[in-house]
Amino acid sequence: WFRVDAGGLGNWLPARARCTHKGEQGHVLIVGGQPGMSGAVILAMKSALRAGAGKVSVACHPDVQAIVAAAQPEAMVHSIKDEDTLKPLLRDASAIALGPGLGQSRWSHDVFSQVMKADALKVIDADGLNLLASYPARSSKLLLTPHPGEAARLLQTTADEVEADRFLAVTQLREKYGAQVLLKGAGSLLVTDRGRCLIDRGSPAMASGGMGDLLTGLISGLLAQRMAPAQALIAGALWHAMAGEEAGKDGERGTLASDLLPYIRRLVNGYGRDDD
Amino acid sequence: WFRVDAGGLGNWLPARARCTHKGEQGHVLIVGGQPGMSGAVILAMKSALRAGAGKVSVACHPDVQAIVAAAQPEAMVHSIKDEDTLKPLLRDASAIALGPGLGQSRWSHDVFSQVMKADALKVIDADGLNLLASYPARSSKLLLTPHPGEAARLLQTTADEVEADRFLAVTQLREKYGAQVLLKGAGSLLVTDRGRCLIDRGSPAMASGGMGDLLTGLISGLLAQRMAPAQALIAGALWHAMAGEEAGKDGERGTLASDLLPYIRRLVNGYGRDDD
Amino acid sequence: WFRVDAGGLGNWLPARARCTHKGEQGHVLIVGGQPGMSGAVILAMKSALRAGAGKVSVACHPDVQAIVAAAQPEAMVHSIKDEDTLKPLLRDASAIALGPGLGQSRWSHDVFSQVMKADALKVIDADGLNLLASYPARSSKLLLTPHPGEAARLLQTTADEVEADRFLAVTQLREKYGAQVLLKGAGSLLVTDRGRCLIDRGSPAMASGGMGDLLTGLISGLLAQRMAPAQALIAGALWHAMAGEEAGKDGERGTLASDLLPYIRRLVNGYGRDDD
Amino acid sequence: WFRVDAGGLGNWLPARARCTHKGEQGHVLIVGGQPGMSGAVILAMKSALRAGAGKVSVACHPDVQAIVAAAQPEAMVHSIKDEDTLKPLLRDASAIALGPGLGQSRWSHDVFSQVMKADALKVIDADGLNLLASYPARSSKLLLTPHPGEAARLLQTTADEVEADRFLAVTQLREKYGAQVLLKGAGSLLVTDRGRCLIDRGSPAMASGGMGDLLTGLISGLLAQRMAPAQALIAGALWHAMAGEEAGKDGERGTLASDLLPYIRRLVNGYGRDDD
Repeated sequence: WFRVDAGGLGNWLPARARCTHKGEQGHVLIVGGQPGMSGAVILAMKSALRAGAGKVSVACHPDVQAIVAAAQPEAMVHSIKDEDTLKPLLRDASAIALGPGLGQSRWSHDVFSQVMKADALKVIDADGLNLLASYPARSSKLLLTPHPGEAARLLQTTADEVEADRFLAVTQLREKYGAQVLLKGAGSLLVTDRGRCLIDRGSPAMASGGMGDLLTGLISGLLAQRMAPAQALIAGALWHAMAGEEAGKDGERGTLASDLLPYIRRLVNGYGRDDD
Repeated sequence: WFRVDAGGLGNWLPARARCTHKGEQGHVLIVGGQPGMSGAVILAMKSALRAGAGKVSVACHPDVQAIVAAAQPEAMVHSIKDEDTLKPLLRDASAIALGPGLGQSRWSHDVFSQVMKADALKVIDADGLNLLASYPARSSKLLLTPHPGEAARLLQTTADEVEADRFLAVTQLREKYGAQVLLKGAGSLLVTDRGRCLIDRGSPAMASGGMGDLLTGLISGLLAQRMAPAQALIAGALWHAMAGEEAGKDGERGTLASDLLPYIRRLVNGYGRDDD
Repeated sequence: WFRVDAGGLGNWLPARARCTHKGEQGHVLIVGGQPGMSGAVILAMKSALRAGAGKVSVACHPDVQAIVAAAQPEAMVHSIKDEDTLKPLLRDASAIALGPGLGQSRWSHDVFSQVMKADALKVIDADGLNLLASYPARSSKLLLTPHPGEAARLLQTTADEVEADRFLAVTQLREKYGAQVLLKGAGSLLVTDRGRCLIDRGSPAMASGGMGDLLTGLISGLLAQRMAPAQALIAGALWHAMAGEEAGKDGERGTLASDLLPYIRRLVNGYGRDDD
Repeated sequence: WFRVDAGGLGNWLPARARCTHKGEQGHVLIVGGQPGMSGAVILAMKSALRAGAGKVSVACHPDVQAIVAAAQPEAMVHSIKDEDTLKPLLRDASAIALGPGLGQSRWSHDVFSQVMKADALKVIDADGLNLLASYPARSSKLLLTPHPGEAARLLQTTADEVEADRFLAVTQLREKYGAQVLLKGAGSLLVTDRGRCLIDRGSPAMASGGMGDLLTGLISGLLAQRMAPAQALIAGALWHAMAGEEAGKDGERGTLASDLLPYIRRLVNGYGRDDD
């Protein structure tokens, strides 16, 4: 278990080529957004955009489409009514964020099943993890970001068991799902294609709703820009924690997930990357 | 009657533990939002978030759901159609704000009755107070924040009577409802489990719509973070007044309730707490 | 014809009393907002709020209610379906802004007729003026703010005739309607209870859509705070022009009406009132 | 082929006359906005406003009207249901932006055909170009802004062929359509009434969604202010690139199209016009 910090990421996300265009910067598809939970996809969408994805599309429940579309004009936002509306979006996606505000309704199950058949790299979080526990899959193209409760469901145990030996739990998740795994909590643990590591950055300012959605969006934005899955998970987790530290400097209580967005942009552009 | 000021709050809201997560910072439920009055729940919701609640959910009328959900992605916003949609929200709430924009329709009466059965601490304001006057209840788990007109209805008297002896009115409210009571107005009076006190802070900049909704949200946010009811009422009232003073420095006329939000965040984090 | 400038307003809007509350700062009702023109009521509403009105309500077409309600949580926004929904709003209003985005449909005619029966002071602009040309009324409680084209319709002549002798046109408007009148254009002319004056402030930055809606909201906000009609028209016109000058300092082209809002707040609070 | 830079634009957009009003600054009509792509018209609309157009109207699909109308109160936003709703908008427009988020549905085809019959100057982009490829037209009143893929469809060839000789492709577009043509990409090429030129400004920060919509809105805003078509295309392309450079200084990755809007306003007002 090695400890990752800003200096350790080296040149994982080099400066953009001078003549690049948006087609080269990847296309993120955010899948989620049941009624009542539109904010989760909004946060993931904004985070993917600020992480530098060339294009960001959202596939959400018809009842929340207008809410999400109004949140950021740079994204394309699609109502998912059936398989046919989802199919072309999956075909165009270079990375998928599956889970923010997805819910566990019949709609959620149908959407989850169809997205899992797509070939693209997938970050799975929130209700996406709960659904994965019901329909287990194994692939190194999956990136899982559970908190202890979600990890427990994925391992069919309890959150207390997970917390009793977090190192064991994250290793078991890796074994069972073959995925790149991040176990969230104070002291995040990661088991990936690049081995085992821990990240002890972050801030109590991050103890509020929506922070996980931001992380999911950030990782998917890095994947879209062709960062390898293990690296995207590690860099995403670290920059997310560092953005929380920065935002928390204005007051830990009352920091909102949206407050981290400007820092995410700065961090993917190298700010603070060599500090320690 | 003692006079409360910033220095008197001591360490009521200490710094967050380093390893806390959102589950430990409480879950506020804002209940209200009839058509035409969606702004009231939006302001209460934002205030609870900036006060530091770990999670904030809103239970509102179906016709305003999209408006409220679009206002802040960090909150979860639910349409209340019947008892069954409200029940799980009440179960998950650690503190409830009942009243902002609630109205007095049949829907409002039904929602009010069901919420009053829940066990959680409740801040009652605006139309929630008008409904409480119709369905009186006694509990030290209630926090009431009437202005003189609402106090009059709660005491079945007139606003002039209330204003003629504000000290008597607030004492009678305490006796009748057994609640923590704040009587708003110039020179706020409080009778709570911690005795009687007055707060003579605030600003003429606060003479505009929505300021009360902000206060309701702030107090519920403090309750969610496990501040005791009496303390949450006192600290909430004081910080609200101080935030109004700060916002008013940019011009008393035309200060809007939203302008106070950044100051609320600063005050719950200790800024200005020892000034006087 | 005397020239009005900042120093000439004296103490028309003195500092607020220390113990005031929102009930004393008046209640503006903005009436307008046909589909396609919701932005006009949004701008008038924001302007009335930044001018310092204690409460601001909007009465608009049902199809735009959600758009307007989402724009500013401090306002109350009501769908007008029939006379009964408008009646209580008219009763509560201390000043009415009639016309922003009102349109000329059947709905607009019905709304216009009903509002004209209300007793409150009324600022009439935009399509409200076009409808007034069809249903003439005489009252010193009316404040009219036509541009030359609207003035022409009110006088049953042409805009060229109006422009040929602007002094005559504004005098004729005063005679015909008995109202406080402002004729907009480069060099605004006013004929009011306080006599005849001109305002030669303003900026080419104001040559963009929505500036008139802002003025209507500002004047109604001043009326609600009990400024006399003639004074509200003069002060509103002057501060509107000065706010345009300030906003235009960031670049005349591409200045939007919204950009003036912070300056309106500053000006009603005395900033720049003694400059010349 | 001459190289255009800031100093070369001379006095193409002189300071506004002191006494101008919005009627003299032109009326832009943005046509587009299928469901899922409302953001494209929002960005074009905001860009036209910040470019200094006196009035901006949007003609969009009924299902996105509320989303677009909520984005900026200074614009008027109309649902297009049939020819009759579009006709008066076309009559009032001094410049039209045709294509942002237009889609390729039956609705899109109908709208495209009707707009092409209007006499006003037209900037055609995005799906407007794809539809033009199906319904070719020749006119010097058209301004085309294809990227290589769109250029290929317009020339019935492939994007690789276009890229193989960009100078040839843009010349062929000019010949085939008789239009003012800008071929986007690294090193933009223009063939217009003012001859052939290239613009080698811009930034990798512009490799993200919505940048083209911004350009379309900007050019149409310049046309509305009576800049000649060739000049509007050249100045628009240059200022768009320079705005991208400025916005990119805050971090190339994660720059969003909206971030360029303040710089567009500054550039149309002369900021940086003489720098090189």
